[in-house]
Amino acid sequence: MKDCIQVGMLGLGTVGTGVAKVLCQNGASIAHKVGKPIVLKTVLVRDVHKERSLPQPVQVTDKVEDILNDPEIDIVIEVMGGEEPAKDYMLRAMKAGKHVVTANKDVVAQHGKELFAAAEEAQVDFLFEASVGGGIPIIRPLKQCLAGNHIYEVMGIVNGTTNYMLTKMTQEGLDFADVLAEAQAKGYAEADPTADVGGLDAARKLAILASIAFNARVTFDDVYVEGITNISSEDIAYASELGYVIKLLAIAREEEGRISVRVHPTFLPSSHPLANVNDVYNAVFVRGDAVGEAMFYGRGAGEMPTASAVVGDVIDAARNLYRGASGRILCTCFEDRPIQPISETKAPYFIRLLVQDQPGVLAAIAGAFGAQQVSLNSVIQKRKINGCAELAVITYEVPDSCVQLALSTMRGMSVVSEVRSVIRVAMD
Amino acid sequence: MKDCIQVGMLGLGTVGTGVAKVLCQNGASIAHKVGKPIVLKTVLVRDVHKERSLPQPVQVTDKVEDILNDPEIDIVIEVMGGEEPAKDYMLRAMKAGKHVVTANKDVVAQHGKELFAAAEEAQVDFLFEASVGGGIPIIRPLKQCLAGNHIYEVMGIVNGTTNYMLTKMTQEGLDFADVLAEAQAKGYAEADPTADVGGLDAARKLAILASIAFNARVTFDDVYVEGITNISSEDIAYASELGYVIKLLAIAREEEGRISVRVHPTFLPSSHPLANVNDVYNAVFVRGDAVGEAMFYGRGAGEMPTASAVVGDVIDAARNLYRGASGRILCTCFEDRPIQPISETKAPYFIRLLVQDQPGVLAAIAGAFGAQQVSLNSVIQKRKINGCAELAVITYEVPDSCVQLALSTMRGMSVVSEVRSVIRVAMD
Repeated sequence: MKDCIQVGMLGLGTVGTGVAKVLCQNGASIAHKVGKPIVLKTVLVRDVHKERSLPQPVQVTDKVEDILNDPEIDIVIEVMGGEEPAKDYMLRAMKAGKHVVTANKDVVAQHGKELFAAAEEAQVDFLFEASVGGGIPIIRPLKQCLAGNHIYEVMGIVNGTTNYMLTKMTQEGLDFADVLAEAQAKGYAEADPTADVGGLDAARKLAILASIAFNARVTFDDVYVEGITNISSEDIAYASELGYVIKLLAIAREEEGRISVRVHPTFLPSSHPLANVNDVYNAVFVRGDAVGEAMFYGRGAGEMPTASAVVGDVIDAARNLYRGASGRILCTCFEDRPIQPISETKAPYFIRLLVQDQPGVLAAIAGAFGAQQVSLNSVIQKRKINGCAELAVITYEVPDSCVQLALSTMRGMSVVSEVRSVIRVAMD
Repeated sequence: MKDCIQVGMLGLGTVGTGVAKVLCQNGASIAHKVGKPIVLKTVLVRDVHKERSLPQPVQVTDKVEDILNDPEIDIVIEVMGGEEPAKDYMLRAMKAGKHVVTANKDVVAQHGKELFAAAEEAQVDFLFEASVGGGIPIIRPLKQCLAGNHIYEVMGIVNGTTNYMLTKMTQEGLDFADVLAEAQAKGYAEADPTADVGGLDAARKLAILASIAFNARVTFDDVYVEGITNISSEDIAYASELGYVIKLLAIAREEEGRISVRVHPTFLPSSHPLANVNDVYNAVFVRGDAVGEAMFYGRGAGEMPTASAVVGDVIDAARNLYRGASGRILCTCFEDRPIQPISETKAPYFIRLLVQDQPGVLAAIAGAFGAQQVSLNSVIQKRKINGCAELAVITYEVPDSCVQLALSTMRGMSVVSEVRSVIRVAMD
């Protein structure tokens, strides 16, 4: 047996640099835990001539073969991001008998099946704790600690950028555009913020969580996605008045044998444990038949938190290697579960309308809802905007299709000037 | 290879019944995850003639040998509770080559070293996720997901009874005695509530958490313990006024190479993630050099949540068995770390005194604090009780010994009628 476990890393950006730091600064205790030292041998970079301040000497290369064909390297860490060539490199690493640890939610959410099949075939580990929730332990707890449960629901705040923005809008009454500009200035949001504010990043993470929670393959394409770009400070003020906060939630729920998977802004009761998760923090809330409710909270992104998750996986792969137990826990998607179309999902809705300020309008609106079997739980009418009355309602739980039909009717009514907001409400 | 994995269980109380239910109701998916079915074969009970409604037929026996000597049984679940004979049975099970899963905090906190040594010797698994935090995944996340971190601090609400009581006292302004009576009536507190309200239960769990977090053996005897019996509704009202809640915290913190481990009521800032953990819920908050802050929240006790953790461990042991990787992760206490005496631990303190209502008294009190280098951060004097003035102060961070000396001086002063409360304050 070799006297150390050698690791190659693909990528040396933010997360890769964090991984190098953690492996170095906690190397002694990691060696104790594994039984032998873990050594970062070679790192794939784009430009081998760039100045880098690494905590330890490490070989850099711009040829992936220097890692994939190195028989001394047992574990490959993929922290390049993006679908290709990351996926191709991971598949080649597995074929070469190397264990793969990745932080790449894009690849896992879209190509999990292919990667798991390759890992199974090669009998290597394929670990991806860092792909969801940054440093928060969530994949392993779901796959192992909660493995005895029938999971009904996983609900999470899994995108730090949007949570930071919604927190700012809530705490400081700011508008979306101002908060986005601030988040970009602070480096919390990208120059092109679509993946975050459009909910796509959260949807990828949800596909991964749902696949594990429900033992069934759920991909990014299965997830219904609405972002936060239409959320206004008025919506947030209404939410607060009614005892809610608005959060971008990623929700996976079992509904009579089908799975509902969706990312959308949500009115969440202020008393819900997720309602206090603010700023760039993430949290995942799980309901299971045995555990009841559990929640996992922490930093969902960043150099060191993500590195924490990557190194945890590397240690696990190394322990398996040491024990001859590689490929110990692979794909757990052994069920086929149909996806519930968004039109059939049920929720209460918060709806905000501008209507003509004249007698009989409320009756007409109530009639349009009633015609689609949408009952109203509460109605607030308290202010005028440009001569119109603003009407805010919360419905009882109804199928999305009924709400859409009612809204479509209302959009055609002369007394309705504008449908301003349509936001789902989470029940306790 | 056998076509199923057979399990024996010691004890069929609340948790044992839950384990039997979970193994039965989720048996099909558990079999998929492990690769073969897990079958509960034999259960040790006190009275074999008692009527029981179990979800599946199972052999009951009052002879432990029927389990320990049964070569078909691979995994033994210990849910009897108490130190003996539970410890003896677990050691014998390991010697017989059986993997052991336990929910027994008493044995793990006091005899972890002996049990780990036996597991190592026999190369069997020894798993105890259920011993801390009921259903909350915390042991495995610390041992695996966060294994790359240097952990600085673990701080938890790990006793549901006291958290329920403090929540009631806070939300309803009730007194300790009334809340205790109610908790006993609801079955949340035992007839003899000492282990809970005295902090002993929390101290056992803290010893387990600290051992894992700091890679060093910490036992129950190392933990400084104060319970909540002296907490009054007045203390809670002051806390609330000052922006705090009072929680019974189990705190393990690294202090310059030594470990401070203590359980005591604590003024916790209302903005802290643990401050919103109410009722019977538990949560463990962890700080590490890579992950930053993480928190694990859920039901800390009860039939099904505890069974969730036990069955998660059984599945893990079964996966190891299937892969020939038993004993994959055993004792991680490879360091020796001295314990910091409580007298040297530092904290700000909330102190409430009854003093004579006359000129010069405040100066005398301030002088007594100052003589021990205890500086005051805030002083509140606003009401009289029995002709005395009530004085509430919060100090800056000071060593416990200085506070005790100052208090001892004050207790001897004629102008001080009574030292009513001395409660540590957690900093953000």
